[in-house]
Amino acid sequence: MDTQPFLPILGQFKAVFLDSYGVLKNHRGLIEGVQQTVDYIRERGIALRILTNDASRSQHEQFAAFRRLGLQGIEEDEIITSGMLAKQYLQHKVKSGRIAYLGTENAASYILESGNTSIPAGDVDLERADEIDAFVFLDDEGFDWNRDINTTVNLLRRKTMPVIVANSDKLYPVSRNDVALATGSVAQLVESILNRSFIHFGKPDSQMFMYAFDHLNKEGSGQYDKDDILMVGDTLHTDILGGNKFGLKTTLVLSGNTSARNAGLLISATGIIPDYICASIVG
Amino acid sequence: MDTQPFLPILGQFKAVFLDSYGVLKNHRGLIEGVQQTVDYIRERGIALRILTNDASRSQHEQFAAFRRLGLQGIEEDEIITSGMLAKQYLQHKVKSGRIAYLGTENAASYILESGNTSIPAGDVDLERADEIDAFVFLDDEGFDWNRDINTTVNLLRRKTMPVIVANSDKLYPVSRNDVALATGSVAQLVESILNRSFIHFGKPDSQMFMYAFDHLNKEGSGQYDKDDILMVGDTLHTDILGGNKFGLKTTLVLSGNTSARNAGLLISATGIIPDYICASIVG
Amino acid sequence: MDTQPFLPILGQFKAVFLDSYGVLKNHRGLIEGVQQTVDYIRERGIALRILTNDASRSQHEQFAAFRRLGLQGIEEDEIITSGMLAKQYLQHKVKSGRIAYLGTENAASYILESGNTSIPAGDVDLERADEIDAFVFLDDEGFDWNRDINTTVNLLRRKTMPVIVANSDKLYPVSRNDVALATGSVAQLVESILNRSFIHFGKPDSQMFMYAFDHLNKEGSGQYDKDDILMVGDTLHTDILGGNKFGLKTTLVLSGNTSARNAGLLISATGIIPDYICASIVG
Amino acid sequence: MDTQPFLPILGQFKAVFLDSYGVLKNHRGLIEGVQQTVDYIRERGIALRILTNDASRSQHEQFAAFRRLGLQGIEEDEIITSGMLAKQYLQHKVKSGRIAYLGTENAASYILESGNTSIPAGDVDLERADEIDAFVFLDDEGFDWNRDINTTVNLLRRKTMPVIVANSDKLYPVSRNDVALATGSVAQLVESILNRSFIHFGKPDSQMFMYAFDHLNKEGSGQYDKDDILMVGDTLHTDILGGNKFGLKTTLVLSGNTSARNAGLLISATGIIPDYICASIVG
Repeated sequence: MDTQPFLPILGQFKAVFLDSYGVLKNHRGLIEGVQQTVDYIRERGIALRILTNDASRSQHEQFAAFRRLGLQGIEEDEIITSGMLAKQYLQHKVKSGRIAYLGTENAASYILESGNTSIPAGDVDLERADEIDAFVFLDDEGFDWNRDINTTVNLLRRKTMPVIVANSDKLYPVSRNDVALATGSVAQLVESILNRSFIHFGKPDSQMFMYAFDHLNKEGSGQYDKDDILMVGDTLHTDILGGNKFGLKTTLVLSGNTSARNAGLLISATGIIPDYICASIVG
Repeated sequence: MDTQPFLPILGQFKAVFLDSYGVLKNHRGLIEGVQQTVDYIRERGIALRILTNDASRSQHEQFAAFRRLGLQGIEEDEIITSGMLAKQYLQHKVKSGRIAYLGTENAASYILESGNTSIPAGDVDLERADEIDAFVFLDDEGFDWNRDINTTVNLLRRKTMPVIVANSDKLYPVSRNDVALATGSVAQLVESILNRSFIHFGKPDSQMFMYAFDHLNKEGSGQYDKDDILMVGDTLHTDILGGNKFGLKTTLVLSGNTSARNAGLLISATGIIPDYICASIVG
Repeated sequence: MDTQPFLPILGQFKAVFLDSYGVLKNHRGLIEGVQQTVDYIRERGIALRILTNDASRSQHEQFAAFRRLGLQGIEEDEIITSGMLAKQYLQHKVKSGRIAYLGTENAASYILESGNTSIPAGDVDLERADEIDAFVFLDDEGFDWNRDINTTVNLLRRKTMPVIVANSDKLYPVSRNDVALATGSVAQLVESILNRSFIHFGKPDSQMFMYAFDHLNKEGSGQYDKDDILMVGDTLHTDILGGNKFGLKTTLVLSGNTSARNAGLLISATGIIPDYICASIVG
Repeated sequence: MDTQPFLPILGQFKAVFLDSYGVLKNHRGLIEGVQQTVDYIRERGIALRILTNDASRSQHEQFAAFRRLGLQGIEEDEIITSGMLAKQYLQHKVKSGRIAYLGTENAASYILESGNTSIPAGDVDLERADEIDAFVFLDDEGFDWNRDINTTVNLLRRKTMPVIVANSDKLYPVSRNDVALATGSVAQLVESILNRSFIHFGKPDSQMFMYAFDHLNKEGSGQYDKDDILMVGDTLHTDILGGNKFGLKTTLVLSGNTSARNAGLLISATGIIPDYICASIVG
């Protein structure tokens, strides 16, 4: 797979959207050299947004996590998560209700911010299922899989209600070779058992790009057209497909899910064609 | 199911997005009384866009079809089809290639407008599969199902390429009781046989709403916020889900796919909640 | 739903195959009155086999469990489990290998009886994945769902090997209203993640009926034809479909999965038609 | 892939079950040399049955087809088709009803032999859907795909009834490179549209092996044990899986669906392990 250096491409754009996992960091921490790229972005005055399907942590926590890893120069409000889109949906469509969830207490902050009350699936009393107004799949951690997935199935058998999947990713890498099941897999198991389709948030749906685009243009510092924006990600069927459908130029980086070895095959097999391919966002 | 009259709701908005089938027309022709609603829209100066997942006919043909049915007051460029989104994708990502398709010759105009060359699946020479650059599912008519679906399967087995589904709807009504398989069903059969996922266009993806929203705001006649726009449709999981996710107020009408009898059950079962429910856009 | 008394039907047959859960017992214990029916079977000299998709416990343990519940008159070797079929497969096709599993230690007895060595998924060292020869889904209990399902996914990503699902049931009842995910659901989650189909055992596959039929005719006490045998179960798509396809007369009982309220609808919707319908095997 | 010569293996068995397509014949006609193997079978007095998932033609027609291709020495009643199993099911469970079907008139002979009346899907009057008692998917030919699949969907929406799939194969080869969609694909499309599971017949279900095994042992010429029988086929997940589960020794031949190039990979990936691998049944 022939790759191009990233910075000369980046230099042609007024704004850049970056995926987080596989682009800025991986299972070992920050990807080496990304600080220089962020510095370059700041020096050039290129607008930046980070678009992540991670709904397990709030904007603030993701911001703090970058800080802990040692990455400087990213502002909290430049981080856009699929959880924020789920929150917005809950806010507008469920309003002041009682929402049960699978995930950590941290992840549940999304629900509280939406003006609703949160209750972990493990604390739901099935005899009082009627008091629950909606359900959210937030994270693959923070609960007992056997007990709480069963409670979720029984809750949703007893009462029909809106069910939101705040992160549809199926797997995430935990080491060079291995993966872990993500929220999307847990949700899919329950969808299959109940023979239902839930409401999914996150890339590749254009909505997350729209959110970032609107946010960018609210700054007032001049208008950004779609032609001015480069989308960068490591996954064809979320980052690149979503960017392509939204009408942005797209760069696939080979520092995450997609390896140099199989990128060509995957591109031709899926028909999801990035405008550029780079080894990483470094250099 | 309690419903509200439509016009008083409509009167609160500066713009309205209407689905076509099940809202303006059905299998028998125009829905009685819709001309008055279109007239009301024009008198009040409410901006109008029609958002349809029908990719079988060009913008112009859909315009002409409304005329033939006797509907006045809709402009050609107010009609936005999922075929136009597919065209845009082909334009940006395939460019000047040779694109095979399933559908009518009319539907193929989307491909020609994208700057690519079109060839019906039935005319593809499998020995020269390498000359085809992409494939598009456009319509359920205009080809021999047995022969041409088989050709499609064999073409896509011989060469990996981008495959676009310009209309993901599975069924459409042909009479009060009966349905016909739509393009989305044919595409799904081929996806299942090949164990692949194609690139799908149309509602509920936010992209079609984005396209309409951008188009609206290019007119210059003042800016429209999302709060100013009402989305109206007859199908929960395309029109209403898409509108809700994009951040519009939504109205479900009971003049098409969703009947008064099952609307309440479907809403609670799917968790897709319209802001308003009306019998139709009339009155 | 019109039902018939069971004993007059039973009296017409020389042998009877009974499902266990929903026929002899339920989540509360023995179904009231089944002892009399077992006594009747013994007095009449009707041959009996119990056919269960439960692979979580050995033949001996299932026998002991009936004893603990107070049921008399069932012999250990009259119990036929889907685990025994899985064992047979491992015996003939894997032979003396090392087999990893999800389930309790008890369930693993099936593997040991097959002449293979068993290792719980939780004890698998992924760096030595090459030493594992096959994988078996045995039970939904006896492991940490989050940790061990992830280990299973990673093991099967690292090495392709035969994967056996010893019980394909998706759910089992745990109370009058509620269910728990069974082994089949866990296996399906992993199949979906890996995009693979595993090798499934149990009803409705004819193989379990064949096993019981062969076993019956090995007794020497005269030959049994298929016409001589009645299959009795509470689930249409396992017990009744399997019995029908194997060529037995079938009785649906309404003491388990299928209720009097929905039996008629389910029968016409599935086209799985029992020869008789009884409230239970009692009376 | 190392292969063994076939005849020395065959010589160790008292009976052989052969798949038809990919073993005796392919898209070009008889596989060269199979006459000698059939002659060898006859000389040695090895019992023979042919097990085919082809439900498009009756036993007699399949017999006649072998004759036309020039193959001698196969008796009509040695041919066992999945259509015969479907017929048996219809006979026992639908009895004297009116059965609609997709397939050729020839294929419909199975229905007539079952004592039921047959009506092509294309001739069904949807207004009289109530008069239809069951539906059978028989063949991928003999009907207008677009019109008659739509009629099938509407018939099954209007009335719930037993639906039988007499051949679950998804594809069949029509040339060295190309395939055609088989009955199983058409049935799967309709299952997916209606969100239902139909009743499927054919390998790998043990029932077809059982039928052949019973038939063999009805001849009276001595008893055959499972150990005495060799199953031979070209497809892992039908012929070999079914034979393995039934408890027969199995031989995979590389003259059909499974090529020498990918056999090893497929065996390890599926865990379906034949006892022997041969290039073909010749030599």
